[in-house]
Amino acid sequence: MGRPLILVSNDDGISSRGIQFLVTVMKELGEVIVVAPDSPQSGMGHAITIGEPLRLTETDLFKDVKSYKCSGTPADCVKLGKHFILKDQKPDLVVSGVNHGSNTSISVLYSGTMSAAVEAAIEGFPAIGFSLCDYDSDADFSHTAEYVYKIAKTTLENRFPEGVALNVNFPPRQNEPIKGIQVCRQAHAKWQEEFDQRHDPYGRRYFWMAGNFINFDTGEDNDEWAIANNYVSVVPCQYDMTAHNAISILNEWSFDNPT
Amino acid sequence: MGRPLILVSNDDGISSRGIQFLVTVMKELGEVIVVAPDSPQSGMGHAITIGEPLRLTETDLFKDVKSYKCSGTPADCVKLGKHFILKDQKPDLVVSGVNHGSNTSISVLYSGTMSAAVEAAIEGFPAIGFSLCDYDSDADFSHTAEYVYKIAKTTLENRFPEGVALNVNFPPRQNEPIKGIQVCRQAHAKWQEEFDQRHDPYGRRYFWMAGNFINFDTGEDNDEWAIANNYVSVVPCQYDMTAHNAISILNEWSFDNPT
Repeated sequence: MGRPLILVSNDDGISSRGIQFLVTVMKELGEVIVVAPDSPQSGMGHAITIGEPLRLTETDLFKDVKSYKCSGTPADCVKLGKHFILKDQKPDLVVSGVNHGSNTSISVLYSGTMSAAVEAAIEGFPAIGFSLCDYDSDADFSHTAEYVYKIAKTTLENRFPEGVALNVNFPPRQNEPIKGIQVCRQAHAKWQEEFDQRHDPYGRRYFWMAGNFINFDTGEDNDEWAIANNYVSVVPCQYDMTAHNAISILNEWSFDNPT
Repeated sequence: MGRPLILVSNDDGISSRGIQFLVTVMKELGEVIVVAPDSPQSGMGHAITIGEPLRLTETDLFKDVKSYKCSGTPADCVKLGKHFILKDQKPDLVVSGVNHGSNTSISVLYSGTMSAAVEAAIEGFPAIGFSLCDYDSDADFSHTAEYVYKIAKTTLENRFPEGVALNVNFPPRQNEPIKGIQVCRQAHAKWQEEFDQRHDPYGRRYFWMAGNFINFDTGEDNDEWAIANNYVSVVPCQYDMTAHNAISILNEWSFDNPT
């Protein structure tokens, strides 16, 4: 058996530091191919490009690694990479990141990083999205290298659950080393939006979206707790959005005879 | 108690026929306010706009209804609508659509229509996304009016499950009337991408994404089955992406000692 084939993408764009770091670690584990957006795609959620054409262009941004930039979203990158770059080869692992910023809790919904991983899971490929809970574009990733390697290697060595993508978040660099890995669930939390209202030079109003993160979760088995306590959080994610427990509630409603 | 307050959005844009139709039906049920994208946002998934400013402008596109167009995504519309238009008023219902095209099964992940509804669910508002399984921009919505009304009215009259948004899909108009409503789960299916490869006038390659829908699901309790059998499908959706059943599997992995 040859070296594992690893497809790398992200949402901060192919020229970000996070993807350079991720490729460096993945080269220790297998043959790496990069297909990543040509521009930042943060907050893109699981967007795909259906109303306009896509471009895919080879780059020389990574030493000894084939790499391609794509004009689309992270999910587009996985679709195009599978179709035009990998062709008949099935990747042993798809990784996305390392994102400059947290993707814990509810942020998984808005995350371009995780959309690449979830798209890979839909295709039946083992997949991991990595994020560092530090929004600084010059953030120090070095303390996460050991864990990126361990989690990717463990994923390659085990039978991966079908239709799952791991959402891995790292705490920001602190004075003491990371305490370890916690497998956990998505915390119950939300973003409370705040909008910065301004006027352009022509007197017209515009808004910048900002927000405060509000954690409603008091448990210790969730990703927010893990990060706050200097652990790496590993949340297995799936893409069945059905609220199965609500089906019986709705079946008791009289849709045909509202009052 | 006054008339219910209903916030309407969509992803095909504020000038689409589907939202005009939805507003017409909602006006029978309550006081309607529209906040919708100023341009088509299909396939946007749960994207939000964080890297550029947003615009919000009042329009006169709807008779006797306050309406605003927004430069952002469907999720942005709900956030801005809540913050700047509704302010201290809590909507009794948030509806999105009616989408020109199916959002059954896996399409819920890519759906801008459902992202508006899910964003409302995160805010704690009862929410419904409506989609017609007909991609024609001139599609006939008239056979769905009775069901849009019934489902919205039933939702207003019942205690709505917390953190849930209904994903409602309608079969295309057929010779016989719709058979009724089926509450069901998201079908197990995927899009098999196909890319149409072309060259621009400068000889450079570009791609159009297309795809075939592949249904793996043989059950009769899912949305694909309902639509194929001329029922309206109602899937309750939630936003915890955790694959809870995979947590015990991952807890058996030796992350710290890969071979």
